[in-house]
Amino acid sequence: MQVDALDTPVTVVDLDKLQANIDRLQRHLDAHGIASRPHIKTHKIPEIAHMQIRAGAVGITCQKLGEAEVMAQAGIRDILLTYNIVGASKLERLMHLARRVQLSVTADSAFTVGGLSEAAQREGVVLDVLVEFESGMQRTGVPSSQEAADLALLIAGSPGLRFAGLMTYPSTDVTDPFVRETRALLEKEGLTVAHVSGGGTPIMWQAQTYTEVTEHRAGTYVYGDRKIVKDGAMTFDECALQVITTVVSRPTADRGILDGGTKTFTSDLLGLEGHGYIVEYPEARIYGQSEEHGHVDFSQCPARPAIGERVTVIPNHCCVVSNLFDQVVGVRRHEVEVVWPVAARGALR
Amino acid sequence: MQVDALDTPVTVVDLDKLQANIDRLQRHLDAHGIASRPHIKTHKIPEIAHMQIRAGAVGITCQKLGEAEVMAQAGIRDILLTYNIVGASKLERLMHLARRVQLSVTADSAFTVGGLSEAAQREGVVLDVLVEFESGMQRTGVPSSQEAADLALLIAGSPGLRFAGLMTYPSTDVTDPFVRETRALLEKEGLTVAHVSGGGTPIMWQAQTYTEVTEHRAGTYVYGDRKIVKDGAMTFDECALQVITTVVSRPTADRGILDGGTKTFTSDLLGLEGHGYIVEYPEARIYGQSEEHGHVDFSQCPARPAIGERVTVIPNHCCVVSNLFDQVVGVRRHEVEVVWPVAARGALR
Repeated sequence: MQVDALDTPVTVVDLDKLQANIDRLQRHLDAHGIASRPHIKTHKIPEIAHMQIRAGAVGITCQKLGEAEVMAQAGIRDILLTYNIVGASKLERLMHLARRVQLSVTADSAFTVGGLSEAAQREGVVLDVLVEFESGMQRTGVPSSQEAADLALLIAGSPGLRFAGLMTYPSTDVTDPFVRETRALLEKEGLTVAHVSGGGTPIMWQAQTYTEVTEHRAGTYVYGDRKIVKDGAMTFDECALQVITTVVSRPTADRGILDGGTKTFTSDLLGLEGHGYIVEYPEARIYGQSEEHGHVDFSQCPARPAIGERVTVIPNHCCVVSNLFDQVVGVRRHEVEVVWPVAARGALR
Repeated sequence: MQVDALDTPVTVVDLDKLQANIDRLQRHLDAHGIASRPHIKTHKIPEIAHMQIRAGAVGITCQKLGEAEVMAQAGIRDILLTYNIVGASKLERLMHLARRVQLSVTADSAFTVGGLSEAAQREGVVLDVLVEFESGMQRTGVPSSQEAADLALLIAGSPGLRFAGLMTYPSTDVTDPFVRETRALLEKEGLTVAHVSGGGTPIMWQAQTYTEVTEHRAGTYVYGDRKIVKDGAMTFDECALQVITTVVSRPTADRGILDGGTKTFTSDLLGLEGHGYIVEYPEARIYGQSEEHGHVDFSQCPARPAIGERVTVIPNHCCVVSNLFDQVVGVRRHEVEVVWPVAARGALR
């Protein structure tokens, strides 16, 4: 079946570009001796995770326990869960998972560490725990080296847990100094920092400049999107994920309406102007969206589409788009090759 | 099972508030002799559509064909599809649907009308078509009364189609004058405007002031959200949909992190500041989100939550939230009564 026969809106992934994106980053990280642990939150598809592992990734990263469960069921054996697992129900599921795969997890508080230790002890497993620290994003992560060292010592002294290193997102200028300071504090206590996990697609080609980081986590690189192109880390031509839409209305000479809105693309702007890049009409501006409509200004385009015409959108943010589709279609040279269920879509818990 | 036993993030719907919201609007529209045709895009759940019909709605509104198919399968018999249906595949599905339910559809171009007529003629059905017109949203809809009248005449003269009236969204100050002007043009041609369908939750209590509008379409009213509260059409206490989250991190004295971000709430702002209202901490500000984290500033709160504490969020925009969850949990007085699959979730085509 040809791509043109797919009804819209539809999310297609160019399989050649996908493989090239996976290989390109893997070669780069290999060349610099940095382990690759791609984040599957972008694609949520087991077969793509296996492609990443086959290319040389040491394992995968998941953000939610439910994602990790899906990936484990699909045969992925090494999973880092970069999330504070809190509460009896999730801790029980975490332990079930720890029995089946090489699992590591992160924590940024004594509360999280306490829960992990109690659960691991009860289940008789030993769980690797990394301390999450803050590199400027103002999200999770302990803000000071002293707190990181204190938490590492707590983990090392907690039954059922093993201190496995440090984790942050994204890698920034403060990452290396933070790691060095924490390591110095821990060495006094006889504790080694085995792994330092950093990440981010925007800085992937500079991963080697974060000299303390031993492992890089990138998610978006696998597909690419308008944000990453703006960041300069990929080109539009390298973007593997596209959403094909149809022009369903042309109410005025300048305005065109696409059959995809926030329920196809989300309203993520990530600092960009407008809601996506239209491949066939690069001068067009998706100036607004409602839930099922994209509102496009074609006034700057030399030619304008007719109603019924299909146009291809590279979204602002690919991760949230793949989370809105139950399936994505893998294509090679415009021929449909595979339809992938987005198996870990909606795995919010 | 008590609500407190549900793992987070979880979307719960208070069944008493839901019923009250449905009844309140129905009574208002009944009192003013306006037909109610609720938009199911908000909930996407057949049982709620049936509640709306039982309360007195003349039928439902769907935005996507896939939503209409789900609702038809669940026994809903009268569906208005307020979308330009374009392309052979969708037209074929539309005709299958037209054989099974009382179906009407909208169009804003000769192109759409041509496709509808050809398909209806081939299938031997007669399809009701309303002309969509622009009331200021700059989305779909013909911009002038002359164009509306021309399109109405085209529909009336097209085999397989019946001109059923006018449709717009939302009802605004320009709606009535537009209808009157279009009706005058059509009366000269001997054509009657049988129905005028307007809508919007923010203006639902003023629906009677749009004197030309015979039918009101509201979607969000069924759940309510922070945007509608800001608009003054509902109170926080009337909001039936809430997302229960857990505080998973407290990295600083002021900052708290919830286990829901853009993949739970989307990044829809709709003109609001911040990403939701926290019921237990009304002074808190959800200042940022990443995909699976909500970033909260608790600095203005007299008390602050501990890690592991559950907090209840009323989202900015309920429609996009229910589209992110495979299920919502119906509760009554904190007791779980039903788990509803969001059956028309992800019905993008």
